[in-house]
Amino acid sequence: MPDATALTGAIAPVVTPFRADLSPDPARLVRLCRWLLASGTGLAPFGTTSEANSLSVGEKLALLDALVEAGLPPQRMLPGTGCCSLTDTVELTRRAVRHGCAGVLMLPPFYYKAVTDDGLYASYSEVIQRAGDARLRIYLYHIPQVSQVPLSPTLIERLLDAYPGTVAGIKDSSGDADNLRSLLARFAPRGFAVFPGTETLLLMAMRGGAAGCISAQANINGTAIGALCRDWQRPDAEARQSALTAFRATIQKFPVIPAIKATIACSTHDDGWATVRPPLVALDAGQRAALAAALPADLALSGLEAVVAA
Amino acid sequence: MPDATALTGAIAPVVTPFRADLSPDPARLVRLCRWLLASGTGLAPFGTTSEANSLSVGEKLALLDALVEAGLPPQRMLPGTGCCSLTDTVELTRRAVRHGCAGVLMLPPFYYKAVTDDGLYASYSEVIQRAGDARLRIYLYHIPQVSQVPLSPTLIERLLDAYPGTVAGIKDSSGDADNLRSLLARFAPRGFAVFPGTETLLLMAMRGGAAGCISAQANINGTAIGALCRDWQRPDAEARQSALTAFRATIQKFPVIPAIKATIACSTHDDGWATVRPPLVALDAGQRAALAAALPADLALSGLEAVVAA
Repeated sequence: MPDATALTGAIAPVVTPFRADLSPDPARLVRLCRWLLASGTGLAPFGTTSEANSLSVGEKLALLDALVEAGLPPQRMLPGTGCCSLTDTVELTRRAVRHGCAGVLMLPPFYYKAVTDDGLYASYSEVIQRAGDARLRIYLYHIPQVSQVPLSPTLIERLLDAYPGTVAGIKDSSGDADNLRSLLARFAPRGFAVFPGTETLLLMAMRGGAAGCISAQANINGTAIGALCRDWQRPDAEARQSALTAFRATIQKFPVIPAIKATIACSTHDDGWATVRPPLVALDAGQRAALAAALPADLALSGLEAVVAA
Repeated sequence: MPDATALTGAIAPVVTPFRADLSPDPARLVRLCRWLLASGTGLAPFGTTSEANSLSVGEKLALLDALVEAGLPPQRMLPGTGCCSLTDTVELTRRAVRHGCAGVLMLPPFYYKAVTDDGLYASYSEVIQRAGDARLRIYLYHIPQVSQVPLSPTLIERLLDAYPGTVAGIKDSSGDADNLRSLLARFAPRGFAVFPGTETLLLMAMRGGAAGCISAQANINGTAIGALCRDWQRPDAEARQSALTAFRATIQKFPVIPAIKATIACSTHDDGWATVRPPLVALDAGQRAALAAALPADLALSGLEAVVAA
């Protein structure tokens, strides 16, 4: 059974390293994940930041297998498994469960828009039934500005009522503070784990009973995010929140996923990290220089250079 | 080489039949495609109406193989191959080219929103280079209300300049008459095939140099759509247009994809046709009855019952 305490704190939707031919590079991914774990950050491979939907199912399965075969702990992993296709979602979810992953982060099918709650309920329900494993823990993934398929409170409640225990939590990446507050108030008392998808709302969320934070920025600022998840009741919490918010604002001056990869490329002196798959576009030289100048000197990537070179 | 005349007139984004366990049913698909071809309608399997993005790549490859193995002419086929993942799009596109399909209908990668023209150009460009086959003909698929990733005239021109011959046309499903007019005026003179995605704009489009029409309704009203593609200069063209528009309005009183499948179920007395994959939801009994009552008595599905029972 997954350890319920494993999935708390800062969790990174880990960026996916590509070789020059745009194929995923499992060895590099393992090294980054090892560094993230060592600095206390959990792993959510195959999130939006991971360019997961730019990968085939086969590529994702191979990467997940590589992480587990490298000895990284599945109980600290929350791989994204939600695809447009029912059969793809089932295949990825089954593999994650078989590996003993703590849970899966599941987008709704996102091609059709204006779908009904009945249709979304049927989607999640089919996946749960086809996975057919009591160990499955699903964390719903609400990111309407990208998926364009919001998950309504009514849908969440219906899923939670039908599959208590299995439907275990949500990543709310809407950035909508009211929605986050409402999810916390309505579902956290039932043991449902609510994770803001942005650390700008982290202190508020922790005060409301959040489980932690799953944010792109946890790839490069996970230590600080994790510290606030842990120490939100301490007097310096507001200052920590301000620092997280300021850091995020720096990254958000650039396209976020390429900027996070460029930050890792910069810290590790390994340009390959900057590679993205189309339709994303890597930062150009001018953007790279501006980003490097804007990053705080004490950026908590210390140690990454050594680890990735190992 | 594909026959340039093969891809004109009415083309149906063929609905995908499912068995009770939601697996695709190749035998049924072959029968529907045979009937469509016999009534003069071309085939665009794996379009939006086909629930293509609710299928895995493996399921799509198996269905395409089944169509070709059944002896249906690839030169009348325009399979949809555009996925979120670069590698998925390449795999499907290669198979379509290898089978000698007339072309492929290619969505842009549609998970990320607000992507740049540079990123979309790189996506299409990578696919073309990886397909690596001079026989490839790409028909761009502009359906911004669903994909949320529009294809701008600037992007189209850039692709057409870089890959003349390969970038062969577009399906404009925006429903925006101004956009359609502008595409026709700007690109049709270069031999670029423009297909409206809705037959409500068909007469206007044919007068402007369109190649035909790729519409969901061509699954069940292909004969009439094809007739206007052919006879748009005849005096009864306006009346034909009005009839197409009225038919579409009848179907659009219901969720369109389930309604088209229910129409086929009704005409063939085979309820299995009504099955959809989540997140779509089949019409309920009341909707089915209302649809049956609303359909014109002379619906041009004559012959389908016999063909599908064969």
